[in-house]
Amino acid sequence: MIERIAILGTGLLGTSVGLALRAAGYKGSITGWNRTPEQGKVALSMGAIDALVPDPLEAARESQVVLLAVPIYATLDLMEQLSGFLGPDQLVTDVGSTKAQIAAAAGRLFNTPERPAFLPGHPMAGKERGGAAIADATLFRGAVWIFTDDPSCVRSPQSAELAKDWREQVVAMGSRTIDLDPARHDELVAWVSHLPQFTATALSALLEEEVGNAPELKHVGGRALREMTRLGASPWSMWRDIALTNTEAVEKALFALEQRLAYIRENLRTPELRDEFERANRFRRE
Amino acid sequence: MIERIAILGTGLLGTSVGLALRAAGYKGSITGWNRTPEQGKVALSMGAIDALVPDPLEAARESQVVLLAVPIYATLDLMEQLSGFLGPDQLVTDVGSTKAQIAAAAGRLFNTPERPAFLPGHPMAGKERGGAAIADATLFRGAVWIFTDDPSCVRSPQSAELAKDWREQVVAMGSRTIDLDPARHDELVAWVSHLPQFTATALSALLEEEVGNAPELKHVGGRALREMTRLGASPWSMWRDIALTNTEAVEKALFALEQRLAYIRENLRTPELRDEFERANRFRRE
Repeated sequence: MIERIAILGTGLLGTSVGLALRAAGYKGSITGWNRTPEQGKVALSMGAIDALVPDPLEAARESQVVLLAVPIYATLDLMEQLSGFLGPDQLVTDVGSTKAQIAAAAGRLFNTPERPAFLPGHPMAGKERGGAAIADATLFRGAVWIFTDDPSCVRSPQSAELAKDWREQVVAMGSRTIDLDPARHDELVAWVSHLPQFTATALSALLEEEVGNAPELKHVGGRALREMTRLGASPWSMWRDIALTNTEAVEKALFALEQRLAYIRENLRTPELRDEFERANRFRRE
Repeated sequence: MIERIAILGTGLLGTSVGLALRAAGYKGSITGWNRTPEQGKVALSMGAIDALVPDPLEAARESQVVLLAVPIYATLDLMEQLSGFLGPDQLVTDVGSTKAQIAAAAGRLFNTPERPAFLPGHPMAGKERGGAAIADATLFRGAVWIFTDDPSCVRSPQSAELAKDWREQVVAMGSRTIDLDPARHDELVAWVSHLPQFTATALSALLEEEVGNAPELKHVGGRALREMTRLGASPWSMWRDIALTNTEAVEKALFALEQRLAYIRENLRTPELRDEFERANRFRRE
C-alpha cells in the first residue's frame, strides 16, 4: 500500500495527479516540489500536495513513490540525482512524453535489487497550456496511460510491489493502462500526438501570416478552424524536449504528411480525392 | 416583411435555417423541397418546413424568398431554372461555400429591375456530417454569415427590400454578417475553412494507414487527436464541388502548408522552432 508520494514538478500534470489521487480516495501524504515556488504554492492551495519543500531530494527522501512531472531533460537530470540518493525500496516513475531516453536511463541507473526502481510512464492527457492553476482532478479520466517498463528487470520485492500499486493508482484515477516497448511508444506518439501538435503549429503560424493582420477575418472559420488551431497555443517550452528526443520519428511523420497534402493538392479535380476522403472517413469510424 | 419562404434542399443547412427562423420568431410560411423525399420528411417532422412539395419550381413559385441550400453545382443548376421562372419581386439567396461562380451566375441571370434578385450568401457554420436529422436551430448562433453581393446591381424596389429583410433574418438567427468581394471570399475561405478541412482529411487518411490496423492505438492520442481528425469524417460528397470551384486558392493554401511543415521538420533542433511556435501562439491570442 502506497502511503507516501512525492510529486516533483507541480505544473499542470503534477498538480492534476495530486488532485486525481485525492479524488480517487488516496489517504497518504503528498509532498511537492517545484523549480519555481509560485507553482508549488498554487498546487498547495488547491490541495494537490500537503507540503511544499524547497529541494527535490528532500521531497523524495522519505517517499515510497516519487513522481517526476517535469520536462524530459529535467526528468533525466533528476534521474541522475535520485538513483544514488534513494534506496532499493523506493519507486520513481514519470510522465514524460518520449520514452526511449528515459527508459535507457532507467536501465542504466535503476532497476537492480540494490537500487531504486524506475517505472517509465506517459499519461496521454494534457492541455494546450500549462500551469498548476488549470490542473484538473478529471484530467486522466478516460485517457490512456502508457508504461514502457522493461519486463526483464529485477527489483527488490518492495519496489516491485510499489510498481504494481502505482499502476492500480493510475487505474483509480480513471486511466486505462497500456504497455509498450519504449521505441514503439516513441514511434506511435510521433503519429498520434506529436504530428497533430506540429501540424496545428504549422497551420496556426501560416494563418497568422496570411490573415493575422485582419482580426475580423480570423474568426470567420468557426468551430472547425478553432479546433484545428487550438494546439497552436501550445508553448515551445513544452515541446522543445519532445522535438529533441524524438526527432527522427517526428521528421518521418511530418514528411509523410507533406506528401499526403501534396497528393490531395494534385488530385483536387480527380477521383483520387474521393478515395482519400474515404480513407479519412474510415479512421473516424473506429 | 418576409411572409413566404421556400427552402430548396433540406439537408443539415436548409433544415437548420428553417428551425432557426422559427426560433427567431418568423411567423410566415416555409415550403420545402429536397432531391430525395426522405430528408424532406425529416425536416417536415422537425417543424423546419410546413409543407414538402415534390418540385423545386413549385416550391419557389409563390415564395418571396427562395433559399438554395444544395451543393454548389446543384445551386448553379437551380439558378438557371429559377432566373426565367421567377419574377422581379422575388429574391433568391444561397448558402454555397464558394462564391465566385455563383456570384458570376447571379450577375448573368439575375439582378436587373426586370428579373428576380439573387443575394449570394455563405454562413460559416456546419458539421462534419450532413443530414436533416442533425439540424440545429442554434447552428448559426455566433457564426459569421458572409454576403458577396454586387453593390452596383439594380433591383426592383420590392426585391431590394427583401434582400434587406433577409439580412435582418440572418442577424435574428444569431449570425454576424460580413460583406466581401466574391474573389476575396474564395481566397479567405481557402485559408480558414478549406485548408483546415483538407489538412484534417490528409492527417486522418495518413493515420488510417499508419495505425488504423491497431484500433487500440488509434485512441491513444486523446482529445488533441480527436479534434485534429474530427473533420476527417466529412464526406467527399460535401467537398467535391468546393475542390472543383475553388481549386487554385486551395492549391495555393495546401502548398503553403506543405512548405511550413517542411520548415518545422528541418528545424526540430534549431531555435527557428521557437519562432514558429511563437507565431502560432500569436494566431491564438486574438
